[in-house]
Amino acid sequence: MSRTHPARAIIFDTDPGVDDVMALAFLTRLPGVELRAITTTFGNLALEATTRNALTIAERFGLDVPVAQGAAHALQNDQPRFVPHVHGADGLGDVHLPVPRRTVDPRPAADVIIDLVRRDPGAITLVGVGPFTNLAHALHKAPEIAGLVAGVSLMGGAFGTHGHTGNVSPVAEANVAADPWAADIVLGASWPVTMIGLDVTQEVVMDEAYLAALRDQAADAGRLIWDISRFYQRFHEQTRGLRGVFAHDSLAVAHAVRPDLFTTRSGSVRAVAGGIAHGQTIQKPRGLLCAPSSWDDRPEQAVAVGVDGGAFLDLYRRVLVA
Amino acid sequence: MSRTHPARAIIFDTDPGVDDVMALAFLTRLPGVELRAITTTFGNLALEATTRNALTIAERFGLDVPVAQGAAHALQNDQPRFVPHVHGADGLGDVHLPVPRRTVDPRPAADVIIDLVRRDPGAITLVGVGPFTNLAHALHKAPEIAGLVAGVSLMGGAFGTHGHTGNVSPVAEANVAADPWAADIVLGASWPVTMIGLDVTQEVVMDEAYLAALRDQAADAGRLIWDISRFYQRFHEQTRGLRGVFAHDSLAVAHAVRPDLFTTRSGSVRAVAGGIAHGQTIQKPRGLLCAPSSWDDRPEQAVAVGVDGGAFLDLYRRVLVA
Repeated sequence: MSRTHPARAIIFDTDPGVDDVMALAFLTRLPGVELRAITTTFGNLALEATTRNALTIAERFGLDVPVAQGAAHALQNDQPRFVPHVHGADGLGDVHLPVPRRTVDPRPAADVIIDLVRRDPGAITLVGVGPFTNLAHALHKAPEIAGLVAGVSLMGGAFGTHGHTGNVSPVAEANVAADPWAADIVLGASWPVTMIGLDVTQEVVMDEAYLAALRDQAADAGRLIWDISRFYQRFHEQTRGLRGVFAHDSLAVAHAVRPDLFTTRSGSVRAVAGGIAHGQTIQKPRGLLCAPSSWDDRPEQAVAVGVDGGAFLDLYRRVLVA
Repeated sequence: MSRTHPARAIIFDTDPGVDDVMALAFLTRLPGVELRAITTTFGNLALEATTRNALTIAERFGLDVPVAQGAAHALQNDQPRFVPHVHGADGLGDVHLPVPRRTVDPRPAADVIIDLVRRDPGAITLVGVGPFTNLAHALHKAPEIAGLVAGVSLMGGAFGTHGHTGNVSPVAEANVAADPWAADIVLGASWPVTMIGLDVTQEVVMDEAYLAALRDQAADAGRLIWDISRFYQRFHEQTRGLRGVFAHDSLAVAHAVRPDLFTTRSGSVRAVAGGIAHGQTIQKPRGLLCAPSSWDDRPEQAVAVGVDGGAFLDLYRRVLVA
């Protein structure tokens, strides 16, 4: 099921978030790629904040696409936990961006996804960089969309393939942990999902010099990225001793348009809900021999196990600076 | 907490099982190591069968030590699942070994463990190669034994460090899956546990030629091992295409006496009970940065991540053939 052709039309499902904005800056400047909609979800912050941030950035970037609001909480848990200590109290580094004048599309995010996918069968790639609740809602309302998308590239999961493990627990990554019920549904649907998890996103660091070069060479977007990423970089410094930031969400965009930058492993994937492994993603790699298990009879999905980080960083810079 | 000194007195907690007998043959022929007791548990088969097998083998090997019967089921599940398709209907390859004349020690296994550990503080190494229920019962009855053992070497768990995963599910190994509640207690106690999991036991194969050489050179034990391992090898052939058997339980014995053959990783370990990850063992490696989690405030234990398989196979053969 792993995709090898580049995306040409994308719906960006997001919970901005600093790295979400960095991913959106990249996506909207990619030649030959059309952004069709931004859909928002709870995640890094509450839905109201992530939606406000999406509107602010859409306005700043002059994006003439719908911004539709989605899920305020997980499928089976209405008490989300937010991470203002990672992205800032406002989710974008507390640099006091202007209040948006734009307003949201009147349709719920899931309906926008369904409408756009139905309208252009086989054309749309879904890029999800927050909890996957909107995608699960869309599948529930219109299961046939699974057969109508070009692909699904998701930032999420931790598969331990490089000894990397989770960020919210030893085995759980934040987007999946926020709604593992949704992740399990999305991973169980018959559409070609690729999980861009911590196995690869923590392999790619945009260091301070790289971000400073963007600031100086990439005009408005570079300046914005620099400003909003100061808080985010401090979090990486304080917790990891890393003078830079992980590329995270931008790599899901990169996968959509340049799948050749990634190596992937095939096999059915499940997300754990409840218990100490809550939020863990577990793949049964194709060919693994074990007793019959709840991984059987699920579609094989692709899990990223390697990335050409240098090529990605070059591409991102070229696209931003162009 | 990782141990580096060799064991000199061992209690062998077991659910024989073909590889259990192979481990016991090795253990009882090791120079300078004294077997103090065999304690039995449910596991590969029901407790009555594993205890009968332990008595049969103790008699065959002329072992003058107590054989004490332990747990018939897991701490929180009284419906164990057995694996006659792996070890044979009688657990020892269905070669019709004689019915034992010996009988069990009147004490429960946990009491024997407690008595022997208390009697010789700092001297006893526990080697566990079945579900860890007896060890959990012993800790519950006499928590102080945690401070009185020399070490705890356990065959169990799957940590995915070599891309290996579980054998009863993509993430779960059989001994832990049989009683993850017990495993979590044993791993949470302040004694030095080393987990010899599938990460290393599936790295070491005793192939058919190796087993045939034992048969021809290692007198009675070699002949017995050959006979009882025919069924076990067929299971490996049919499921893995492997013309041989994994060394599994013998490696826990090897760790007790030759810890230098292993490389280990430190960090607290938990076992998952319930849900799709049931039976998974998860280590939080020392130094891993993630949000506060239920791995915190637990003792660090050692997980085997590497083994000198060639040196082990040489050692095992030399000991058996001597």
